[in-house]
This record gives sequence, C-alpha cells and structure tokens, in this order.
Amino acid sequence: MGKDTLHNFDLAMQLTEKDGVYYGETSKEYENMVGPYGGLTAATLLKSAINHPDRIGTPISLTVNYAAPVADGPFLIKAIPVRTNRSTQHWDLKLLQKDQVVTSGTAVFAKRRETWTNTELTMPSVPNPEELERFSTEGFPQWTRNYNMKYIEGTPNMTDEDSGEIRSSTTKQWIKDEPDRPLDFLSLTSICDIFIPRIFLRRQRRVPAGTVSLTIYFHTDEKTLTKSGTKEVLGHARGQRFFNGFFDQTAEVWSKDGELLATTSQIVYYRE
Amino acid sequence: MGKDTLHNFDLAMQLTEKDGVYYGETSKEYENMVGPYGGLTAATLLKSAINHPDRIGTPISLTVNYAAPVADGPFLIKAIPVRTNRSTQHWDLKLLQKDQVVTSGTAVFAKRRETWTNTELTMPSVPNPEELERFSTEGFPQWTRNYNMKYIEGTPNMTDEDSGEIRSSTTKQWIKDEPDRPLDFLSLTSICDIFIPRIFLRRQRRVPAGTVSLTIYFHTDEKTLTKSGTKEVLGHARGQRFFNGFFDQTAEVWSKDGELLATTSQIVYYRE
Repeated sequence: MGKDTLHNFDLAMQLTEKDGVYYGETSKEYENMVGPYGGLTAATLLKSAINHPDRIGTPISLTVNYAAPVADGPFLIKAIPVRTNRSTQHWDLKLLQKDQVVTSGTAVFAKRRETWTNTELTMPSVPNPEELERFSTEGFPQWTRNYNMKYIEGTPNMTDEDSGEIRSSTTKQWIKDEPDRPLDFLSLTSICDIFIPRIFLRRQRRVPAGTVSLTIYFHTDEKTLTKSGTKEVLGHARGQRFFNGFFDQTAEVWSKDGELLATTSQIVYYRE
Repeated sequence: MGKDTLHNFDLAMQLTEKDGVYYGETSKEYENMVGPYGGLTAATLLKSAINHPDRIGTPISLTVNYAAPVADGPFLIKAIPVRTNRSTQHWDLKLLQKDQVVTSGTAVFAKRRETWTNTELTMPSVPNPEELERFSTEGFPQWTRNYNMKYIEGTPNMTDEDSGEIRSSTTKQWIKDEPDRPLDFLSLTSICDIFIPRIFLRRQRRVPAGTVSLTIYFHTDEKTLTKSGTKEVLGHARGQRFFNGFFDQTAEVWSKDGELLATTSQIVYYRE
C-alpha cells in the first residue's frame, strides 16, 4: 500500500453526508462469519458522530447494539445529538438498511478538563511484542488480516471439533493495525471488539455466537493517542458468566507505554 | 407499612400508559444529591419495556445515559421496540421532561434457552449478613433509606474534609430492600447503581460527581430471582481508571446462594 492511498480501515468507514444522513457501504476486507466485523460497525457509528457538525468534545462512552446482521451492500447512519449540555453531549446512533434498524447505539462526548488522575488497574506484565511471533490468521475470517496480533495467553486455537474445556478464558495479546496506522478513537473502538468470543476459548471450539451489545469507556485524549501512534497496544480480556444463551466478557486496552486507553464489556449470544 | 400497601420502590415506579407513552412522577423517597437516585430511573426505564404489550423474553442488557438531572415532578417515557427478531428484541428508551430528552437508553430482551452454563468469576468469601452491623445512612441522601446495607469492605466514611487518599476503591457489601421486597429484574437493576462513586472512596471525601452512563448485563431468570426472594445480595465494586473528569467502575451482584445475578459498569463524571 502506498503512502498516498487510504488504509483498509478508512476505506471501509468512508461515509457520504446528505441532509444530515451518512451513507456507507460494507467492505469485503472486514467480512466476519456473518456480516462485517462488529468493531468496524462500532467505529463507523462513532465516526458519524465525530464528523457531525454539531459535535462537541471527544468520546467518553459508546454502546452499540447489534440488532441484526449487517447485510452486504449499502447502509445509512442517523447520528442525532439528543442532548447537548455545556460540556457533555449525548448521541443516538442508528444504522439502517432497507428502512430497518440493523444496529442501534448511544454515545457520550465531553470536553475534558484536568483533574486528579489515577489508574487503579495494573497493566499486566508481559513480554515485549518484539520477542513474540506474529499470530497466523490463516483460516480466520477476512477482518483479522487487518490486524497484526501477537498472543501471550489465550491463543485462539479452537477447531470445530470438541476438544474438551478449559477453566480460563483470559487472553493477553498485542495488537496493531496491519499495515501501520496511527491510533485514534476510531481504531481504538474497533480494537475493543477484537477479543474473540470467550466461549470459543472455554469450550475450545467454535460454537454459534455473536455480540449483542458492546460498551466502551474511553480513558484517553488526542494527545495520548498521538503518542501511542503506530505502536502496539496490549489487550487483556476475560469472560465472566455464561448462562443460558448469553455470556459477558470484559477487556482493557493499554498503550505500550502503560496508559489505560479504554475499558470495554460486551454481552454475547451463544448456542450449545 | 402494611402488607397491602405498595413498597416505596413500586410507588416510585408507578406508570400510567396512554397512547403508548408512559407517564410517571418523581418520588421524594428516592431523592439523591441532584435529582432522583439513578438506579430508580434505570429501573423505571426497564419497567416501561417490561410492561410494553409487544415485549418478548426477559432483560439481557440495559444501558442508561443520564443526559441531564431529572427535575422534581412529572416525566414521560417512550419505550420503542426498534427491532424484534425471533428470540431477541432491541429497545430504545427515552425519559422526557418538557419535550427535552433527560435520560436515554437501550435494552436487549431475549427468550433464553438452556445451554452450557458456567461462572468464571468467583464469589468473594465474606462474613454472613447476620454477623454484620447494619450501616447507618444518617447524613446520606434520602434514597439510601430504602436499602438495608451491611459493609464488609470499602465503607463510605467520607466527609467533606480532605482526609487523604487511599489506594483501593473496592467495596463489598450486602444489600437488600428496606422493607423486604422479593427480588425481581427491577430491584436488581436499581441495586446495580447502589455503589457510591468510587472517587469518594479514593479521595476519602465527597467531590462533585454523577453517573453519565450505566450498563447492566443480566445473568439470571425469573426462577433464580424468585429463589433469591428477600434474601440479601452481595455487591462487589471497584474503580478502574480516573482520568480528567471521568472514571469508570464495575461491579458484580451475587445472590446469597452464590449465583452471579448481574454484572455492571458505569462511567462517572467528577470534578477536582
């Protein structure tokens, strides 16, 4: 890819605005098992709010509900600031196809001000990415080719065979865009959905599963993102409770320098 | 309170339906520092979906965004099923006052089916509620009087004075409704917001703070809730990252019998 062409990620999120509605199209490069990669959909929804002329501040939180699979082809996004206060703004986000709601969400943006700051969580102690082998995404869905991933723990080695169960669904992995792309709120959003369904790890095989709702809390600003640049970020994820068709998983995304950039949780549908 | 009168919690959530819109009124019994207790608002939004004639299944997830303080007096709720699939249903929830969005949210409901089930988290080992003193809510906002709380760790002992900082914002506490009320999805929702802002614990004093967005994942069904009945539930909460005006906290709510009923996270505005 030449320096003067867009990254796959930016190509996939291209939107055209008309009368306050954003128009886009699904990308072959981000195909998942059913429909596009959910992280891309979340980032595209966030992008529509970021691009909106009335937007204030930077993202604080984002919730995306995957109501139905996004079908291949065109879609439109309605991003509406339902409430704008002095320093915070609340968004309604909807992705539609054929007049039907396919994805719905909400976001909060805010103008931050300097305060007492502290990270109560501790960054896991892990080997540097330079010391690790890149994970081969052969046999994995197309979207995984857009990431350079290096696993420290919880490598996705599942097959379609029943190979028993394990007790932990914890993953630690380094992640960066492939090819390199400087980190921003959009790529950070997408990375928050990179952790494969924890049920695959627990059961050591693929079962039908898909994210139902994803929430991201952003703990960063433009300056910190710029500093992270094209360096790897560290993802740390685990499942919490698997109960009759739905489980939840949480994760943290750390900059290589040890800043907690985002915390995220999702609830995932599964069968079997 | 006689057995034939409604619990404060049910009184505060009373809704009248007209043309698909739900009308309610704020309750003195649930006053917080600014506006009503956020847990009650979340439960009232969920109730409007539960009561809706088109509702299918039981709650799986709920996100509530506190866009502005709810003013004392009447409000209305619009609960719209934006997408209904075979076994899942996605909701748009909005609380309005004077035609302005005050609270917005989304919910997912689903018909559960039996699957492989497992709790990866471990319930903390704590003394039984019978062995502990009830926490005095003297000097705390009115809503706290509706709960019987017993603290094991992270007692809210803050003043308005600067009394230094502590390194952990972890709380473990037994909780039940006061007076007794059998647990259901509504009271569980409200309990998920019971953990006072972690910034109060870290800084050992009150600072201006308020929840901006709350997410709850439900890991339970009617049968388990009925079994929990009027027994205490165990709450376990901690902060994660405090950065320039916003911090997040996560929590789990366990039944006394050791079932993980709900996991929850919220992002909170703070100053100083």
